[in-house]
Amino acid sequence: VGRIIVDWGSSNFRAYRFDAKGDVAETRQAQAGILTVQDKAFETVLQREIGDWITPGAEILLSGMITSRNGWLETPYVETPASLDQLAAGARTMALGSGATLSFLPGVAARKPMPDVMRGEEIQVFGTVGDASAVCILPGTHSKWVQTERGRITEFRTFLTGETYALLVASSIIGRLIPAGAGNPDEAALRAGVAQAFSGSSAGLLNDVFTCRSGALLGEFPVEQISERLSGILIGHEIRSGLALGWDTAAMWLVGDVALCKRYQVAFEAIGKAARLGPAHATVEGFRRLAGRS
Amino acid sequence: VGRIIVDWGSSNFRAYRFDAKGDVAETRQAQAGILTVQDKAFETVLQREIGDWITPGAEILLSGMITSRNGWLETPYVETPASLDQLAAGARTMALGSGATLSFLPGVAARKPMPDVMRGEEIQVFGTVGDASAVCILPGTHSKWVQTERGRITEFRTFLTGETYALLVASSIIGRLIPAGAGNPDEAALRAGVAQAFSGSSAGLLNDVFTCRSGALLGEFPVEQISERLSGILIGHEIRSGLALGWDTAAMWLVGDVALCKRYQVAFEAIGKAARLGPAHATVEGFRRLAGRS
Repeated sequence: VGRIIVDWGSSNFRAYRFDAKGDVAETRQAQAGILTVQDKAFETVLQREIGDWITPGAEILLSGMITSRNGWLETPYVETPASLDQLAAGARTMALGSGATLSFLPGVAARKPMPDVMRGEEIQVFGTVGDASAVCILPGTHSKWVQTERGRITEFRTFLTGETYALLVASSIIGRLIPAGAGNPDEAALRAGVAQAFSGSSAGLLNDVFTCRSGALLGEFPVEQISERLSGILIGHEIRSGLALGWDTAAMWLVGDVALCKRYQVAFEAIGKAARLGPAHATVEGFRRLAGRS
Repeated sequence: VGRIIVDWGSSNFRAYRFDAKGDVAETRQAQAGILTVQDKAFETVLQREIGDWITPGAEILLSGMITSRNGWLETPYVETPASLDQLAAGARTMALGSGATLSFLPGVAARKPMPDVMRGEEIQVFGTVGDASAVCILPGTHSKWVQTERGRITEFRTFLTGETYALLVASSIIGRLIPAGAGNPDEAALRAGVAQAFSGSSAGLLNDVFTCRSGALLGEFPVEQISERLSGILIGHEIRSGLALGWDTAAMWLVGDVALCKRYQVAFEAIGKAARLGPAHATVEGFRRLAGRS
């Protein structure tokens, strides 16, 4: 029996085929996130991307935004504190005409201390922490800070860091000063932005982002540094707010896109803190643990 | 001799004609901000809007973004601490063919504790505070908090509050949940957003704005409240950051657009603070003081 897992988010489609020993035999990935799928033609996309993997008895596990209201089959949220067992128990299944079964995992919701939701990140968290107590940070468009206690997700917060950065660069008065093509990494500017967010002179995020403009206008730094300073300021405020939650950060993992995780490592270093990179394939690890249960 | 003042910003053009006694005889306003002017045809726009006021001996004072690099004539910044006298001394003049003179006022720049700039707001501040020590808050796309000591501008900070709100509503994952036409004032939702920004459970602006989505998804409040909660959260964070500057807020004025100033009053009330509305025509008062000097 072939086991397949699909991490299907808003922007990306990633699939893994396992062999009989439980190892990943093959991986495929495509920019075929649910936002790119017209008229909910999800089965067509699935067949196009991995149709040759799907045998009649195949068992396909799916997580991510594919399980949301705008996805293929909406699953309910498991509420915090949420365990891997509860995640498995909340799955909804569907049979394909070929006989293969699809199993859609639930997302996780928090009602306290602030309402929050995730779909897809939870499996990465379970793949990273095992049965431990830890903090997982998943940087991105909607960065997530997730606290686990003995392997259960107890609390989490989503920060609109990446989306805010993209909007300010593309459409704000700050972005208007950024020269075309100024997208090169500049670790010093990134660190300067992080340091500003933590500085005693900071008057909060809304003022710090404006200084990316005013500082350049007054010649404090060249316009080529604006985008990286801005990124540092936003990441810095995310980290400052995340650390202020008061969670136990003795074990703190950065999970997800490696390049982005490394930027966050630089940001943590800039304030004298350390965060370790999580496993390279947290999603696969999470699904492996889920499968190992049954 | 006719004296005319023109407050010419990015979006709006406002002109005031004074009579011989120094009172405002006539006012005109148009959505003819400098961003709407093609090919720097500023004289054409000036003639179109107030050409009939301009006698050969007329003296026209201008402030706002019209004095910026993208305006008609760029003036240098006066640096903090900045007085009304320095503002007058930094003006740059130009003669029109008709014999009328244009006098472009400088903007104000701060280098410490953070770089900041303004063009146009300073005349409203001088018109509001007179020779006093006070805090002026000028809400808007780029809200400004300005500290004066005995009539001089000693420090100020710009917050990207209004622009961030507009971007999040128009283009973010939060805005996508806002129903069409849901733009009605909702003081309770506004207050709830402000209270959240000041709450001990707040994990900062980047998380608070995301809860406008997650809270609605989880049914904590109806989607019709999202835009006002979001506005309250952003205004709340601005106020929280502004108050954290530690300035003496015994005299605190709200200056500018009356409807927006009243929203800020509601926000201040939500946290048990009071801020008074400044004079209805702070710009005119400022120019009157400037003229009174000479």
